[in-house]
Amino acid sequence: MAKGTVAWKIIKEHLVSGKMEPGEEIAIKIDQTLTQDATGTMAYLELEAMGVPRVRTELSVSYIDHNMLQTDFRNPDDHKYLMSVAKRFGIWLSKPGNGICHQVHVERFAKPGKTLLGSDSHTPTSGGVGMLAIGAGGLDVAAAMAGEPFYLKMPKIVGVKLTGKMPDWVTAKDIILELLRRLTVKGGLGKIFEYFGEGVKELSVPERSTITNMGAELGATTSIFPSDEVTRAYLKAQGRDKDWIELLPDPGAEYDEVIEINLSELEPLIAQPHSPDNVVPVREIEGIKVDQVVIGSCTNSSFVDLTRSAKLLEGRKVHPDVVFAVAPGSKQALELITENGGLLSFLKAGARILESACGPCIGMGYAPPSGGVSVRSFNRNFEGRSGTPDAKVYLASPETCVACAIAGEIIDPRRLAKETGAKWIRVEMPDRFPYGDEAFIEPLSPEEAEKVEIYRGPNIKPLPPFDELPDRLEGEVTLIVGDNITTDHIMPAGAKILPLRSNIYAISEYVYHYVDQEFVPRIKAVKEKGKAGVIIGGENYGQGSSREHAALAPRFLGVRAVIAKSFARIHHANLVNFGIVPLEFTDKSDYDKFSLGDEIEIPELTKRLREGKEVLVVNKTTGDEIVCRYNLTPYQVEVLLGGGRLNYIKRKQSQEVAR
Amino acid sequence: MAKGTVAWKIIKEHLVSGKMEPGEEIAIKIDQTLTQDATGTMAYLELEAMGVPRVRTELSVSYIDHNMLQTDFRNPDDHKYLMSVAKRFGIWLSKPGNGICHQVHVERFAKPGKTLLGSDSHTPTSGGVGMLAIGAGGLDVAAAMAGEPFYLKMPKIVGVKLTGKMPDWVTAKDIILELLRRLTVKGGLGKIFEYFGEGVKELSVPERSTITNMGAELGATTSIFPSDEVTRAYLKAQGRDKDWIELLPDPGAEYDEVIEINLSELEPLIAQPHSPDNVVPVREIEGIKVDQVVIGSCTNSSFVDLTRSAKLLEGRKVHPDVVFAVAPGSKQALELITENGGLLSFLKAGARILESACGPCIGMGYAPPSGGVSVRSFNRNFEGRSGTPDAKVYLASPETCVACAIAGEIIDPRRLAKETGAKWIRVEMPDRFPYGDEAFIEPLSPEEAEKVEIYRGPNIKPLPPFDELPDRLEGEVTLIVGDNITTDHIMPAGAKILPLRSNIYAISEYVYHYVDQEFVPRIKAVKEKGKAGVIIGGENYGQGSSREHAALAPRFLGVRAVIAKSFARIHHANLVNFGIVPLEFTDKSDYDKFSLGDEIEIPELTKRLREGKEVLVVNKTTGDEIVCRYNLTPYQVEVLLGGGRLNYIKRKQSQEVAR
Repeated sequence: MAKGTVAWKIIKEHLVSGKMEPGEEIAIKIDQTLTQDATGTMAYLELEAMGVPRVRTELSVSYIDHNMLQTDFRNPDDHKYLMSVAKRFGIWLSKPGNGICHQVHVERFAKPGKTLLGSDSHTPTSGGVGMLAIGAGGLDVAAAMAGEPFYLKMPKIVGVKLTGKMPDWVTAKDIILELLRRLTVKGGLGKIFEYFGEGVKELSVPERSTITNMGAELGATTSIFPSDEVTRAYLKAQGRDKDWIELLPDPGAEYDEVIEINLSELEPLIAQPHSPDNVVPVREIEGIKVDQVVIGSCTNSSFVDLTRSAKLLEGRKVHPDVVFAVAPGSKQALELITENGGLLSFLKAGARILESACGPCIGMGYAPPSGGVSVRSFNRNFEGRSGTPDAKVYLASPETCVACAIAGEIIDPRRLAKETGAKWIRVEMPDRFPYGDEAFIEPLSPEEAEKVEIYRGPNIKPLPPFDELPDRLEGEVTLIVGDNITTDHIMPAGAKILPLRSNIYAISEYVYHYVDQEFVPRIKAVKEKGKAGVIIGGENYGQGSSREHAALAPRFLGVRAVIAKSFARIHHANLVNFGIVPLEFTDKSDYDKFSLGDEIEIPELTKRLREGKEVLVVNKTTGDEIVCRYNLTPYQVEVLLGGGRLNYIKRKQSQEVAR
Repeated sequence: MAKGTVAWKIIKEHLVSGKMEPGEEIAIKIDQTLTQDATGTMAYLELEAMGVPRVRTELSVSYIDHNMLQTDFRNPDDHKYLMSVAKRFGIWLSKPGNGICHQVHVERFAKPGKTLLGSDSHTPTSGGVGMLAIGAGGLDVAAAMAGEPFYLKMPKIVGVKLTGKMPDWVTAKDIILELLRRLTVKGGLGKIFEYFGEGVKELSVPERSTITNMGAELGATTSIFPSDEVTRAYLKAQGRDKDWIELLPDPGAEYDEVIEINLSELEPLIAQPHSPDNVVPVREIEGIKVDQVVIGSCTNSSFVDLTRSAKLLEGRKVHPDVVFAVAPGSKQALELITENGGLLSFLKAGARILESACGPCIGMGYAPPSGGVSVRSFNRNFEGRSGTPDAKVYLASPETCVACAIAGEIIDPRRLAKETGAKWIRVEMPDRFPYGDEAFIEPLSPEEAEKVEIYRGPNIKPLPPFDELPDRLEGEVTLIVGDNITTDHIMPAGAKILPLRSNIYAISEYVYHYVDQEFVPRIKAVKEKGKAGVIIGGENYGQGSSREHAALAPRFLGVRAVIAKSFARIHHANLVNFGIVPLEFTDKSDYDKFSLGDEIEIPELTKRLREGKEVLVVNKTTGDEIVCRYNLTPYQVEVLLGGGRLNYIKRKQSQEVAR
């Protein structure tokens, strides 16, 4: 069993309850939280509902980086709501344009040895500086802000040993693509990936953060690097010497499992449509014509990424048939490339400069043309996520992206280098970063904060109330889906739907919109009949983002149970948080015993959950009786029975006040 | 009568037919054309329909600057269509990110003494270098590309004499706001504004272009400056020495009318919601809290504007409650402020940097919050154009915008200067601009062009066919509107509707969408009955942009006649181009003799048009008989009778081929 590793030590120091044995429920104290606007509006509505006067964390930051197109009043109203809530509750506010939450958090706030809970699946980015940074649903983050611990199953700690030295044109992105190639998008379930070995010190903090960021695509709980001299130099250059502590694995530290990656053997990799684990060497698919290229996202738009990409473009020109864009990850990074000439190189090559924001990565703009090929430095290439249903999105390092932009087709950057004489460069880290804190609004004092009135635009609706779980659940199969269903499938993002994130009534109309447009009318009809909706899922149900809307909106529509072969971690927690029972087939072949419209009964549901007994699902249409298990801690059972975590916390807070 | 002025000499040199007397129809040769993507897709579909092999102008440029949000496949498909059409027909293509058509055209292509026809109402921007630049519907521009002359009524030439010297904090924007204050949005109808006098030489080319640009808001045919030493220096710095000719009014030149503006007496002005002529001194409305500020648009985001604004922000910070954005007008301008430190000043003040594009000015993003106050350096503040129906948009100089962003409220920049010690700066023009032509695609040779296949995404639909005008028009009053109806009222833009510009079938569902959502179902019902739709309008019907969709889409729905008190120039021409008869009340009080749903008959319509006789409109519901006149040249009558200009040109081209 793991012991003495960096992640292990942080968990130990933050342990509130539970035993640190893989699979056991533990609760840990949360030092910092972050939210972004697409999940944040809901998280703060939940925080408001909890009735605490001010956040109880060491630091909480509310970022605005997702919904920045502002095609109507909804986005800016959300921004104004977030600005007022931040003032009211003692939260830092990062204004639109300041950059992507994860990158800015690494730059300005992440601390080695601390814990961070963020309402975004890429929160592990801050693991790049030795922080234990976990993505969760907004409700969990709201609870953390209210001073509640974070509950999770103690993950296995997998040591990833980096040996050797990366050849030129191989980057941090290729390391994580290699892991995805080996382990697939469900290979990280219930695991923390902790990097160690000689190869670690070759990686700068932004490069480490690329790896911990995209570790999310493995389905991992989080990923983490040690805090060493590289971390110290980085924090010092950010004016944050005091935030540094050394945090290395103890001598003789043990991992639950060890994976070795020999960096010397890596080559430029690329993830093909439509999954981040569909990875091949770039050289194997050379020659595919490219319509657009973009460098950006929380994964790969740091100062290091942008500087090297710009250098590679210097004196070169984007292929006439390609549209090439750069979305800097933060204002700080944009300032740096403005100063070091990188921005000019991009412009003189004919690049578009998009805002410092998530933008195209979350389908907010820059959609590819119909059936178009887009090569991106991002983290996800799920079907339709780009905004164009039939687009083909490839994921690669920024350097591979630039090579494709120049060539007009997919090309191994080593080949382009050979053909054009382009040289690989080593990016020197600055001695002092421009802190760039002008786009933050600092928290107010408690006295000033109390006076703040919260702004609510017409699209911001309070949460609907949810009832308790009945003992006998009567329902109907309203949807059957296959393996690896993502939260993008369940609750799509994109420019049309994201602006509805603070309005459950409106956004719920789009649940499973691109999978089955009949789902919403169907479940409404089922609800009309007084019955519950039941969804049948395959493996890794709910992978991808942390969006709690993928649980909240189905729950609002009437889903009360999802029966799947297996679940992705964050979505599983979100289902529980909103009172949807996540059941797993004991025998996976039982999956085939359900058809759309089958009548379902689950007798003694609350009784069996409370007693820890297996649950019997009766298919009344076929007469089959299916035995299901579940992966729920006692705490989660309590939450489920009460109709969700918000009910639970409200009850607890009111009991505290009563006492 | 005018004679010997700059505009007069250019018209004389380009005259194809007609007498140069105000109100007489003339036809002029067009040297250059420009299109932007929102009007361009339709213009090129029309050009394709005309059957010419290659453009017959000296230079044609297709810009992509409007629809750049790309929230789905529609925008990028349009871009790809435009890129392929440009290659096919020998047209320059300006890729997205290269900047706003008008600003880029001034920088790279506009030539003194030449004529330019553009499918955008702000085409007169190029008048800043002494070019006769006129905005028109896409069909007119397509015709010009096919080698047809441009038909218009010979305008009056109004001399605007600039005397004195602008005080500090007074800018070119204040000059045009002053004209709008005096003359209103219909004050320029049938007029060219030609600037002369001592004050002219104080203005740089970008400043002159601000004035000619926003002259569009006067409803003017165009505005123009002489080409002098200032112009020469500017073109030289653009590497275009050869494009310069001196073009001054002849000694003793005469204007139809002269207006004098003493620059010394001006002060910072601001246009209040919801019209560009609702102008007051800034000091009169100080103290109004501001939610957002933005510098950009073809009116005010030149190198000069951005540099001075950045300087004013240097060492200062945007007010925490304000979101402030900068959208540079061109890649060239962005490159310059990247080099001169201006961009860094913006970033360090906490600004958002939007793409070099029309963006918020055309309602493509950056909408204000509900009921929010937005101060913008733009040209139009029509209700709802920002994307937020109840937002309050103010128009001012960039310098006034910056002052408001710092103060958090509307403030006279002179007061801010006094309070903060900010100094007015004179911006020196560079000796050599970075040409920044990397984002252009040059025209192909005729041989290469022939091989190009035109790309058409699924949203790009060919034009519907239109039938000839019947002699007896039977119709129904389907809408009655008041004065100053804009093309934004008729055919709204914004992020939701603009992407439909190349699909008449889809976009026509939004005609008069924000004025009367029953209009479309109503006219469809009328069309079902085999009757024509008739619209009753007030003064200045169709002011604002050049979008031909405001004629084309109503025509597709079934509108065959608009009866108004008066018409705006470009929209009047667009109505004719698409076969809608524009009739004017002989007695304006007859406007009151119509109610919604009244049955209408216009007997002997084609006969009377052909004979030049007044038209009798019979209101069969009330029994009233209303005498209407019309302002149509013989050429326009021919176009109308044939069902529109496309039918006319197609017939002409096929006759040419037959001969």
